[in-house]
Amino acid sequence: MKVLGIDPGLHHTGYGVLDYDGTNIRLCEAGFIKTNEKAALPQRLIELSTELDAVLTQFTPDIVAIEEIYSHVTHPRTAIIMAHARGVILHRVAAKNIEVVSYASTRIKKSLTGNGHATKLQVQKHIASSLSLPKMPEPHDVADALAVAVCHCHAIQSKGLVAA
Amino acid sequence: MKVLGIDPGLHHTGYGVLDYDGTNIRLCEAGFIKTNEKAALPQRLIELSTELDAVLTQFTPDIVAIEEIYSHVTHPRTAIIMAHARGVILHRVAAKNIEVVSYASTRIKKSLTGNGHATKLQVQKHIASSLSLPKMPEPHDVADALAVAVCHCHAIQSKGLVAA
Repeated sequence: MKVLGIDPGLHHTGYGVLDYDGTNIRLCEAGFIKTNEKAALPQRLIELSTELDAVLTQFTPDIVAIEEIYSHVTHPRTAIIMAHARGVILHRVAAKNIEVVSYASTRIKKSLTGNGHATKLQVQKHIASSLSLPKMPEPHDVADALAVAVCHCHAIQSKGLVAA
Repeated sequence: MKVLGIDPGLHHTGYGVLDYDGTNIRLCEAGFIKTNEKAALPQRLIELSTELDAVLTQFTPDIVAIEEIYSHVTHPRTAIIMAHARGVILHRVAAKNIEVVSYASTRIKKSLTGNGHATKLQVQKHIASSLSLPKMPEPHDVADALAVAVCHCHAIQSKGLVAA
């Protein structure tokens, strides 16, 4: 099955496509969608949706795993802007009848490293190792997108489901 | 010109269509979009977009005025969910090439009542009076949508623009 992991954001939305056969996880593609910082919010949401539609069409994922937004009390405005982007992402995925699962950041870190409060570097190292990448995935939006996709593969594995 | 005011929300999105000729404001239509509380978030965003698309097609507004989301430190989760809905709303409006303007709640209240911290009742009374409504608009999502639309009409007036 193809799992598309998404790290949502307005500036950058990271994505990573994994192929999972129930045992092995293989990286198909990873990248990020960047929107024009000088454009108005509605226009940036259009840019995001257009590029995401292209990713969904090209890779035809069976499921999308996406990170939840944690509401930082110190940065509530950032969380709200990020949620605008996340809303559009969920809408585009649902419009293509693709199932979506959400994971909290701590759950993802725990799934990958055994520690829900692991550092970004620890997560990146785990991703590079489990996907046999020659170097650590960058930027961090891409690493985070791959992390949520790997987390979903682990969740399937722990449920004993055989991925089709 | 036709001004569509929107009070964004996942449970209820209020909307109100006003016709403004530069002097008089006339109510064309008002209502709200309700999504199924038992459905998952992506599905609710699809419901919201489908109904909003129908409103945009039916009333062909020249501009959309929408309330900003204030990040309540006591309810950060609510603000984040609301922002998912607002992101989809901005996306749908921009997809139809309709201009969007945002107003903060305090700006709307000040525009209508002269007091940025007016109560909901004071705002409702002003709306009923300025639109010559026989009774106060209900529920409050509809009143809030009409309020942001009236606020935009006032903003046009104060800039000395002649509405087309």
